[in-house]
Amino acid sequence: MSSRVCVLGTGLIGGSVLRAATAAGWIGWGWNRTPVDAQGFDVTTDLAAVLARAATEDALVVLAVPVTALDEVLRAVAEHAPGCALTDVVSVKAPVAGAVARHGLAARFVGGHPMAGTSESGWDAGSASLFAGAAWVVAADDGLDPDTWLRVARLALDCGAHVVPAAAAEHDAAVARISHLPHLLAAVLASVGAEGGALALGLGAGSFRDGTRVAGTRPELTRAMLEANRAGLQEALDDALGRLGAARGALASTGTVAATVEDGHDARRLFTEHERFDITDVDPTDLRALREAGRAGGVLRAL
Amino acid sequence: MSSRVCVLGTGLIGGSVLRAATAAGWIGWGWNRTPVDAQGFDVTTDLAAVLARAATEDALVVLAVPVTALDEVLRAVAEHAPGCALTDVVSVKAPVAGAVARHGLAARFVGGHPMAGTSESGWDAGSASLFAGAAWVVAADDGLDPDTWLRVARLALDCGAHVVPAAAAEHDAAVARISHLPHLLAAVLASVGAEGGALALGLGAGSFRDGTRVAGTRPELTRAMLEANRAGLQEALDDALGRLGAARGALASTGTVAATVEDGHDARRLFTEHERFDITDVDPTDLRALREAGRAGGVLRAL
Repeated sequence: MSSRVCVLGTGLIGGSVLRAATAAGWIGWGWNRTPVDAQGFDVTTDLAAVLARAATEDALVVLAVPVTALDEVLRAVAEHAPGCALTDVVSVKAPVAGAVARHGLAARFVGGHPMAGTSESGWDAGSASLFAGAAWVVAADDGLDPDTWLRVARLALDCGAHVVPAAAAEHDAAVARISHLPHLLAAVLASVGAEGGALALGLGAGSFRDGTRVAGTRPELTRAMLEANRAGLQEALDDALGRLGAARGALASTGTVAATVEDGHDARRLFTEHERFDITDVDPTDLRALREAGRAGGVLRAL
Repeated sequence: MSSRVCVLGTGLIGGSVLRAATAAGWIGWGWNRTPVDAQGFDVTTDLAAVLARAATEDALVVLAVPVTALDEVLRAVAEHAPGCALTDVVSVKAPVAGAVARHGLAARFVGGHPMAGTSESGWDAGSASLFAGAAWVVAADDGLDPDTWLRVARLALDCGAHVVPAAAAEHDAAVARISHLPHLLAAVLASVGAEGGALALGLGAGSFRDGTRVAGTRPELTRAMLEANRAGLQEALDDALGRLGAARGALASTGTVAATVEDGHDARRLFTEHERFDITDVDPTDLRALREAGRAGGVLRAL
C-alpha cells in the first residue's frame, strides 16, 4: 500500500491534510489554483504535473476544492490520473459522488468528510493538528473498493481523527440535522431578533448570542454548504417545522410548551451524554458491518 | 428619598439585589419562604414582620419570587405594606402588572427586569456583582409614579446595571424575540438532531452545541418563562415560522436559501455591532421621552 497523498486544493482543510499526513510519515504534495507560500511543502499551480506524479507513484488523490470547482478538477483527474485511488473532504457526499461518477472515476472513489474546521480559510489557517480527536466520516456503501477504503481510513487515522463509517446518504441526512439546520435556524433567529429593533438587539444576551453565532459565517460559504444538501436539509427542516407547528398549536390552544421543552431537554442530554464506542471486532473490508456499527455510534480508532 | 430596600424572595436574582444594594449603601433586608443562611444579611421567613418594617421605614419593596408565588406574596404586601413603592425582577412584565393591579397595588408599582442570570439558582448562587454592566429594564408606561420610577432606576444603577426604559408590552415583545424564541428553537433543534440517532449525535459539533445549549436549562424554568409570555412568544414564533416557510419554499422551488442566509448574516452583524447610546438630555420624570429613547437603543447610566 502506497503512503503517498496528492491533495487538490490546499485551503484550510486540504492544507491541513497535507501537513498532518506529512507529519505522520506520508509523502505528500499538492496543487492549488492560486500560488501558495507553503513553507517547504510541495504545492504548485500545475495541475497536470501534480496528477502525473500521482499516477506514477500510485498516490491517494484527495479532492479538497469547493463543490463549484469540482468538475474542472475531476476532468483533469480523469485525463491524468484515472487509475488513482480517490477521496474527498468536501462535506456533502451525494453531489460529490455524482460528479465523480459523471467523470467515470467511481471505481476507485471513497468519499470522506472530516468534521473539523474554523471560521477562517486558506492555507495559512490550516494546521497539522486540525483533525486531532475529530470525527472523519468515510463512506461505507456497498460496492466500494476495499483497498481504497482502507487507504482513506488510514489517512484519516494518521491525521489524528477517528473514522466514522457511514452510508453516503445517511451521512448527508445526519449532517443536515446537526450542521445545516443549525445554520438555517441561526439565520432566522437573527432576523427575528433584528426585526425587534434597537430595543430587542440591546437586550440580547447569552441565548441569542449562542443561537445566532453561526449566522456570522460568510453567507456564500453557508449557502454552498446548505444548497449542496438540498434533499437532506428539506427533510430536517420539515421535521423542525412540524415540531414548531405543534408548539404553536399548543401555545395557542392550552398555552403550554411542555412537550416541546421537555423533549428538547431530553434530546440535549442525549447529545451531551453521547458516547462513542470503539469498533474492534469487525473485518475492515466488510463495509456493511462497518456502516451498521457507525450508525449505532461506533468509531474506528485503529485498523 | 429613602435608600431602604425590602427584597421578597432571596434566590439568585433577589439575593444578588440584596447584596448589591447593600454594597452600594442601601439599608436592605429580605424574606424567603425557606430559611436561608444569608451570611450576615438580614433574611427571615416572617413575611408579615418584614413587610411591617418596610411600611415603617418607607422601603422600596422588590418582588423576586417566581410568577407562581406572586399572588400569595402580593396578598401580604396589600395587607402589611400597601403604601410602599413596589417593583419586581420577575422577567415578563404583563402578568406581573396584572397581578399587582388585581391586588390594588398599581399606584406605586414600577416593573423591572435585570437581564442577568446564570444557570444556577438559590441564595448561594447570587453575588453583589451579578448585575455589573447588565441591562436592567425599567417599565416606563404612562401614568406610573415618577417618584417610584426614580427609586427603581436608582436601585438598578446602584446595583451596577444600566437602565433601559421601555413600555412593558414592548419589553415583553422584545424578550420573546431575543430570549424566549431562542429557547424554543434550541429545544426543537435538539429534538431534530436526536431524531437522527447515534450517527447524527456523534457528528454534532460547534453549530449544534451552540444552537442547543439553552435546551439544557431545567425544563420547568424554561416553561414558566415562555408560558408567562404567551402572546409575545406567539408573535415571535409566527415571525420565525414565516421565514422558515419561505426558506422551505425557496429550497423546494429554486434550491436556494440565499435570502434567508443573507438576511440572517446582516441581522447578526446588526447585533454584534449594536451600540447603546447614553440618554443624557431627557427629564427623568418624562416617561414618554424615556421610553422613546429606550426604544431607539438608549440607556441611562446615571440620574
